Amino acid sequence: MVGGGEGAYIGGIHRFAARLDNHYDLVAGAFDVDAERGHSFAAKNFIDRDRSYGDYLGMVTGERTRDDRIDVVAICTPNHTHFPIAKAFLEAGFDVICEKPMTTTVEDAIALHDLGQSTGRFLGVTYTYSGYPMVHEARAMVARGDLGKVRVVQVEYPLEWMATGIELQGNQQAAWRTDPKKNGRGGSIGDIGTHAYHLAGFVTGLKAEAVAADLATFVEGRALDDNAHVMIRYEGGARGLLWSSQVAIGQSNGLRLRVFGENGSLAWHQEQPNELVFTRLFGAPETIKRGRDDLTDGARVRTRTPPGHPEGYIEAFTNLYSGFAAVIRAKESGAPAGSFGEGIPSSYDGLKGVAFVDAVVDSHEKHNGGWLPLQFA
Amino acid sequence: MVGGGEGAYIGGIHRFAARLDNHYDLVAGAFDVDAERGHSFAAKNFIDRDRSYGDYLGMVTGERTRDDRIDVVAICTPNHTHFPIAKAFLEAGFDVICEKPMTTTVEDAIALHDLGQSTGRFLGVTYTYSGYPMVHEARAMVARGDLGKVRVVQVEYPLEWMATGIELQGNQQAAWRTDPKKNGRGGSIGDIGTHAYHLAGFVTGLKAEAVAADLATFVEGRALDDNAHVMIRYEGGARGLLWSSQVAIGQSNGLRLRVFGENGSLAWHQEQPNELVFTRLFGAPETIKRGRDDLTDGARVRTRTPPGHPEGYIEAFTNLYSGFAAVIRAKESGAPAGSFGEGIPSSYDGLKGVAFVDAVVDSHEKHNGGWLPLQFA
Amino acid sequence: MVGGGEGAYIGGIHRFAARLDNHYDLVAGAFDVDAERGHSFAAKNFIDRDRSYGDYLGMVTGERTRDDRIDVVAICTPNHTHFPIAKAFLEAGFDVICEKPMTTTVEDAIALHDLGQSTGRFLGVTYTYSGYPMVHEARAMVARGDLGKVRVVQVEYPLEWMATGIELQGNQQAAWRTDPKKNGRGGSIGDIGTHAYHLAGFVTGLKAEAVAADLATFVEGRALDDNAHVMIRYEGGARGLLWSSQVAIGQSNGLRLRVFGENGSLAWHQEQPNELVFTRLFGAPETIKRGRDDLTDGARVRTRTPPGHPEGYIEAFTNLYSGFAAVIRAKESGAPAGSFGEGIPSSYDGLKGVAFVDAVVDSHEKHNGGWLPLQFA
Amino acid sequence: MVGGGEGAYIGGIHRFAARLDNHYDLVAGAFDVDAERGHSFAAKNFIDRDRSYGDYLGMVTGERTRDDRIDVVAICTPNHTHFPIAKAFLEAGFDVICEKPMTTTVEDAIALHDLGQSTGRFLGVTYTYSGYPMVHEARAMVARGDLGKVRVVQVEYPLEWMATGIELQGNQQAAWRTDPKKNGRGGSIGDIGTHAYHLAGFVTGLKAEAVAADLATFVEGRALDDNAHVMIRYEGGARGLLWSSQVAIGQSNGLRLRVFGENGSLAWHQEQPNELVFTRLFGAPETIKRGRDDLTDGARVRTRTPPGHPEGYIEAFTNLYSGFAAVIRAKESGAPAGSFGEGIPSSYDGLKGVAFVDAVVDSHEKHNGGWLPLQFA
Repeated sequence: MVGGGEGAYIGGIHRFAARLDNHYDLVAGAFDVDAERGHSFAAKNFIDRDRSYGDYLGMVTGERTRDDRIDVVAICTPNHTHFPIAKAFLEAGFDVICEKPMTTTVEDAIALHDLGQSTGRFLGVTYTYSGYPMVHEARAMVARGDLGKVRVVQVEYPLEWMATGIELQGNQQAAWRTDPKKNGRGGSIGDIGTHAYHLAGFVTGLKAEAVAADLATFVEGRALDDNAHVMIRYEGGARGLLWSSQVAIGQSNGLRLRVFGENGSLAWHQEQPNELVFTRLFGAPETIKRGRDDLTDGARVRTRTPPGHPEGYIEAFTNLYSGFAAVIRAKESGAPAGSFGEGIPSSYDGLKGVAFVDAVVDSHEKHNGGWLPLQFA
Repeated sequence: MVGGGEGAYIGGIHRFAARLDNHYDLVAGAFDVDAERGHSFAAKNFIDRDRSYGDYLGMVTGERTRDDRIDVVAICTPNHTHFPIAKAFLEAGFDVICEKPMTTTVEDAIALHDLGQSTGRFLGVTYTYSGYPMVHEARAMVARGDLGKVRVVQVEYPLEWMATGIELQGNQQAAWRTDPKKNGRGGSIGDIGTHAYHLAGFVTGLKAEAVAADLATFVEGRALDDNAHVMIRYEGGARGLLWSSQVAIGQSNGLRLRVFGENGSLAWHQEQPNELVFTRLFGAPETIKRGRDDLTDGARVRTRTPPGHPEGYIEAFTNLYSGFAAVIRAKESGAPAGSFGEGIPSSYDGLKGVAFVDAVVDSHEKHNGGWLPLQFA
Repeated sequence: MVGGGEGAYIGGIHRFAARLDNHYDLVAGAFDVDAERGHSFAAKNFIDRDRSYGDYLGMVTGERTRDDRIDVVAICTPNHTHFPIAKAFLEAGFDVICEKPMTTTVEDAIALHDLGQSTGRFLGVTYTYSGYPMVHEARAMVARGDLGKVRVVQVEYPLEWMATGIELQGNQQAAWRTDPKKNGRGGSIGDIGTHAYHLAGFVTGLKAEAVAADLATFVEGRALDDNAHVMIRYEGGARGLLWSSQVAIGQSNGLRLRVFGENGSLAWHQEQPNELVFTRLFGAPETIKRGRDDLTDGARVRTRTPPGHPEGYIEAFTNLYSGFAAVIRAKESGAPAGSFGEGIPSSYDGLKGVAFVDAVVDSHEKHNGGWLPLQFA
Repeated sequence: MVGGGEGAYIGGIHRFAARLDNHYDLVAGAFDVDAERGHSFAAKNFIDRDRSYGDYLGMVTGERTRDDRIDVVAICTPNHTHFPIAKAFLEAGFDVICEKPMTTTVEDAIALHDLGQSTGRFLGVTYTYSGYPMVHEARAMVARGDLGKVRVVQVEYPLEWMATGIELQGNQQAAWRTDPKKNGRGGSIGDIGTHAYHLAGFVTGLKAEAVAADLATFVEGRALDDNAHVMIRYEGGARGLLWSSQVAIGQSNGLRLRVFGENGSLAWHQEQPNELVFTRLFGAPETIKRGRDDLTDGARVRTRTPPGHPEGYIEAFTNLYSGFAAVIRAKESGAPAGSFGEGIPSSYDGLKGVAFVDAVVDSHEKHNGGWLPLQFA
């Protein structure tokens, strides 16, 4: 693991996710830009001292020559460092699990994706929300035609936590997210809008063709957007509306997707992730619960408990990790990755996300909100 | 009453609304384009035969000379007839309650609004949803600063009922709504988008400055949009997103408004209209119920029952009617209209709605979704 | 109308209910124990002075001899006066609509029920909640076997408003409800428990055979129970649990019913009355909305608006009133009362309610919570 | 671990719970009554062959003499085996984590509790739901007086899965649960009613003094109750109502608790465990979310993610396990167990649960539903 040390929220989640299904052991890391703090963190996490590295380059060097070298590295650092770190590990022959957004520029994203292809290493991106079982169920339902042809996609990802200038008050998580150099061009649209965009594409299977966007920055002194409105046109005529916000008071982690087709609709809300509301044309809304025996494979393999026993974010993240494991093992063994390997967010998904943010910002900044085509979708 | 006869859904609502608070007696009407059917309907509704008119012109002529002439007429006909009917009654010296949209063109809307002004007659428009008590509460909360400066407005009005081509299968309500000549230029955006637009402005008190829109028609053979996505810019920098749809399976009458300010947020959903969710910055969401003693005047005068005794659409419509009555009486008496008269949708609101639809359609049709300023807001 | 004058909440509801469907005209009343206040109230409600009576006896005398005498009287007074007033009107040949509980003792209830039978007059009791369309739908679903044989009934009616000793602070509504002489033996169980009991029987069609109860009084100085727990045994082996409370903070008007059968279950909540949740054995819960075309007759005739346009308490009360009208007219004409007449709460329902309260109080006070059979069920 | 092998649902949960917080390593077990199947399961779980035992007696013998002997054993077998297994491990000097109910008879429960005391070993019982952070928050809120004196407790635990005779169709989980010899005297009341009873006591801190109960068996041929209604009297005058059911169609795992005090109320639902609804006297209901910084210690230490990132059943179970670890370590070290050790379900809680079931069944079977005092509370 690179990054994810003391106080780094997402690092802990990666470790839970690696541990829960017992597919990973955490044996090495460069956990902190402050090497001493990193070593101290490593010790607390039962990492041998000689595999606690001062920085990622040391880790690449140290690990590549060991017999018991790591199989895969997780990158949990701020956005602008994803590219060099992932590049170094890929080039050294390691598989990589990378936080989103994959990079801060489209050029880097293309390069990294190509590098993954050319080296034959696995490069996965943690689009967390695609790990939820009921998201897989939704995807399967759309795929098998339960909704008919998709017409309208409504997706939103509002948050409250940056509703004030906390980046000026010492909040490190907010500080790098509002710094264009570390975060990339998209504020809310890059941080959470990409999740919403990926989720919509994941469930509907539709490619987005163009976007028209209106970005806003409400907190004074902030350099990046903290609210984004995006109109989307999908292939085949479907239309989407995407809202991301970091200033939405009352919204803890309000990712929500609704898909409307010719014959039915689906609604899913991340804060109540064990349920999916499905309505047939002119029918009564049905609340489908995670854990039912009659769900599709993709939902069932990602489930540990029966209906009514809530599973959540850590289980979803675990499902991603177990999916990465399935794909990596399949790559090694040549055997198929099975249900767990399906829909795993890849470097191409990472590239699509970065390209989406770029187009959104361009639409707003350079085209007065007008329609811009998406290059990778 | 003009229109609203047998089988006309909204006419019945107008009659309930007129009756519930006992401010009106229904004594005359031209209820149907088919005069005989109209007379039959009038008889069932205890209207004297000599005040059941064959058409609206007959009614104007018949009523204007009576000693016991009507005070006010309600117009419940398809959109394209609003203008001539309202014009005739206004010119004959009657007050008018008109269904929305007020007219089908901006020119007509300007003319009608001006006519109301010049004749001194009352001309109200039934933006129904502004009759709900908790909508008034929301408006009062924004006005007194509970949310601080408004930043983001999310409003949507999805419906399911036109998800298939029912206008081709004999549904009269759908038939005129999909006929540009009778309905005007906006399909979903004119029929329900205007409600959403009015509601957002009503609660926030903000003027919209510009719109950028993406319209779609999903049902084959339909001439008007049945789904609209609109980005809105409000004065002072607030941003809005508006979605209207007539093809949203599972959505019965899903008008929903969320307003996010610097210090708090509000959420209201028409299908659960007795509740308002208010969240202070970093606070716990509070569910405020209609009927509480500590609500503002505007909510309290529009309430008939204590908390927990649900009131609904008919009560909201009644509140509009009682508000029209208050304003008309105030005009007659010179006394103030009181709380009931506040925020009553006027002909200027009607004009704003028509202008909004026009700008949305223009943005989509003529400016490739680009930003267009609003002339009346 | 007797009672229901200035400040009497329920009287206003009766008037709305009488007016909305246009089946009644309010033409006479004895609105207040204070005759002058009653006359003043009558004047405001457009009642001729000579039909505003000083008391109910005057009203009986005054009305019985008029050519245009009233058809039916509504009794909206405190519980202990229901008996003499209803008796006087029935004996004078008037039909009667009586607030619940019908009387304060079982003896009076028997006598009144018998009087209704012997005089041939109509005597209805306002078990309000049976007026809701979705309650009729629930009843029809149970009756046609959608749930299979009923096993378990969970019904509750919690309120907050008497959580403190407001009867000592001048609240008149609370004062008579906590006075055994005016209210009868049951506190919460008489005031609201009877509604819950009636609702459960109305929907399931089951007769209760026995009760075992635990009453409590939490507010100091209160003479009657303000919280009641009742275990119920129904014919055929079904079991019920009933909770009524006047001290349940956070519960505005929390009447809620759940019925579980061999093949399905139903849930209905008075504060969201437009929905009914139905679940088939091992199926996904379905949210059935009022206003759908595929509902049963009993629900459809009690509906004024399409799905998504909420109706509430006033509409439910109106449905009762329109049902009373249907039954009374059918009695006059000899024609069937139709769907509107079905399930109308009768004097026998009134008697059952009074007998239930009596048995509950006896179980608690005289049998240490042990099982007591119900005499009228 | 004893039991919990292939196909044993709860065993998997114990393993997740042991692993997630990294406090335990699973190194030995007697996983199955079929020894070969147990060994095969052990192998899949990376257990050394020599620590996969044929039965629990072999495990006691094998482990007690090892230098690297286990610290603590988890017992995940059917109810009737808890007693001999726990007894054997306690006597051999091991700490024990035991599934609930602790035993099938009060005598055994007393003996086991005493044995824990006399041996000085830890004996914890998995009352899972007390592991949820918001349950700890509720407990803390009651304790610090946010609700004032508690008046009414409403707790229910309805399930659907045994609504038909699945025990006759080969469902092993249902088979032993409906066999009095394996399960003990209480059907639904023993299996899930004890959870509800523990939860109510855990949150309110109140001791139950007496119960009056009505048990029913709805599925033909079933030997134990599958539905239980229990009235409870708590010390200080509070009243409780408890419903447990295994035949409640539509209820996946519907544990729900509501507590009403003099000054406020709380509501918590296991299927939405990240929220707690708190209402102050005459106030607006507030939805308090897990993960907030202003929650009490007990909630915060049991939380891994910020608000809006749902945690669930596995995390709650993990919290129990981490609490057991805290208490065991504290016992070893002499240092205090800290927040994680507070409220950990002990053998006395286990004893209380068994005694509750016994009293409930006695009330129903021997006292015609009359009140029976509780011996251990």
